[in-house]
Amino acid sequence: MKLLRYGPRGAEKPGLLDSEGKIRDLSGHVSDITAADLTPEGLAKIAAIDPTTLPVVEGSPRYGVPIANVGKFLAIGLNFADHAKEAGLEPPPEPIFFTKAISCLNGPNDQVMLPKGAEKGDWEVELGVVIGKRARYVEQAEALDYVAGYVLVNDVSERAFQKEMGSQWDKGKGCDTFGPVGPWVVTADEVGDCQNLDMWLDLNGKRMQTGNSKTMIFGVAELIAYMSRFVTLEPGDILTTGTPPGVGEGQKPEKIFLKPGDVMTLGIEKLGEQRQEVIAWTKEGVS
Amino acid sequence: MKLLRYGPRGAEKPGLLDSEGKIRDLSGHVSDITAADLTPEGLAKIAAIDPTTLPVVEGSPRYGVPIANVGKFLAIGLNFADHAKEAGLEPPPEPIFFTKAISCLNGPNDQVMLPKGAEKGDWEVELGVVIGKRARYVEQAEALDYVAGYVLVNDVSERAFQKEMGSQWDKGKGCDTFGPVGPWVVTADEVGDCQNLDMWLDLNGKRMQTGNSKTMIFGVAELIAYMSRFVTLEPGDILTTGTPPGVGEGQKPEKIFLKPGDVMTLGIEKLGEQRQEVIAWTKEGVS
Repeated sequence: MKLLRYGPRGAEKPGLLDSEGKIRDLSGHVSDITAADLTPEGLAKIAAIDPTTLPVVEGSPRYGVPIANVGKFLAIGLNFADHAKEAGLEPPPEPIFFTKAISCLNGPNDQVMLPKGAEKGDWEVELGVVIGKRARYVEQAEALDYVAGYVLVNDVSERAFQKEMGSQWDKGKGCDTFGPVGPWVVTADEVGDCQNLDMWLDLNGKRMQTGNSKTMIFGVAELIAYMSRFVTLEPGDILTTGTPPGVGEGQKPEKIFLKPGDVMTLGIEKLGEQRQEVIAWTKEGVS
Repeated sequence: MKLLRYGPRGAEKPGLLDSEGKIRDLSGHVSDITAADLTPEGLAKIAAIDPTTLPVVEGSPRYGVPIANVGKFLAIGLNFADHAKEAGLEPPPEPIFFTKAISCLNGPNDQVMLPKGAEKGDWEVELGVVIGKRARYVEQAEALDYVAGYVLVNDVSERAFQKEMGSQWDKGKGCDTFGPVGPWVVTADEVGDCQNLDMWLDLNGKRMQTGNSKTMIFGVAELIAYMSRFVTLEPGDILTTGTPPGVGEGQKPEKIFLKPGDVMTLGIEKLGEQRQEVIAWTKEGVS
């Protein structure tokens, strides 16, 4: 299944994408796409609904973040060998994790706003893992049982905030609009092998990132097992798993950073696409 | 006012502490202590209630985290000059922030559980700031207007997880039970000057930390202004502001780390006290 939320920011309704690519309204069955709906029981309840019985949503509504009330938005750094290389860093001996502030969550096609003073905005197409069961000290062999589904993430970053203002990365990762997520949570059964998904990102129509989840240093199952030793993963949490080569700070001969008017388009096989226009900071912000 | 939540984990009720130190039940007026209750309007509504009209809660119930559904739990590192010195680090030129996972939130007197393999558990008495209004690009001169109140925090940490397993600290900061908060949110009007509060922590009855919020490198107003350039602070968010000297890793001649059976007691002037028994990791965890 492809679960989604559609409508204006702050007033999204739950829906699913049917096999013909039409949005169907789920609000007669669930009040929203919440953590409870992403558990095995919640997903089974939705899967039992015949999509053809659901109202078709006409037009092209905005997509929101496909999960309401995300608890934690955790992220893995330097998880593709080639990306670590372009960043001038050794592949880490174990996963590095940091945190994206939940206030940065953004719809998949919403504008991305550069914060005040941002000169090193950058992009990162990533495979997001949506947790479906509470995970503590999970064994790697069982770790994928804790996944509700997968989602496309752009781990937007400001490199000066991230790396030039102290040792901790969170400063450059959680700015408002820096977390486009969606359009859909695609359930794990529909994705199949999560370690063989093509990934790409274009800036203004030019291909910048090309990768595949098979080149992750630490795979999804290993990441869940590892993370669950340090933090309890809860249903609805998003774990984004690192980016392949081709980010702006890795471009040669000159680094390329985001500027107002730029357009990022990105996608992951089976998980859909995103498109974000970059705008300058405005006092009004985005919400 | 002193706002609180009391009762079993996951079934807390809202309350306040009256001028005689009795818990009064607020559940006839608010369903819980939520972000909305911590806004100026929410606080005004509760302040208009005559506490003597509220039912007295008999006995000594458990205190829960005094805020329901905390969105973000942000933390400042190395914010006391003497603490930076004991950690062998230069005072940072600007605030360092990292994130504590919301799944680590714990009642003020609940047990603290060492994670599997933890050998360097440590304590940090801290002044927590509870946000009352959405804060974006706030000026320092106005920053304290965004504070709903203050709360006692123990920023429990595992130093090996924090510092010896990669560059990012979150790994050692967000383990389950590593975020004791409470017993009360004390509203800003009742605290007065937040930069002159005595702070202390005892391990097994022996004084380990002694400090005062006046020795912060970056004061609360500066921290809020600074943070609001990078992340939007929302009502109900907790920003914990760093610890004075005397943590376990700073002890001489030998570092001291937490072991099962230890008892931490800590307090901040006007904000009450906490008491936590340290336990070994158990499969059942704490909830």
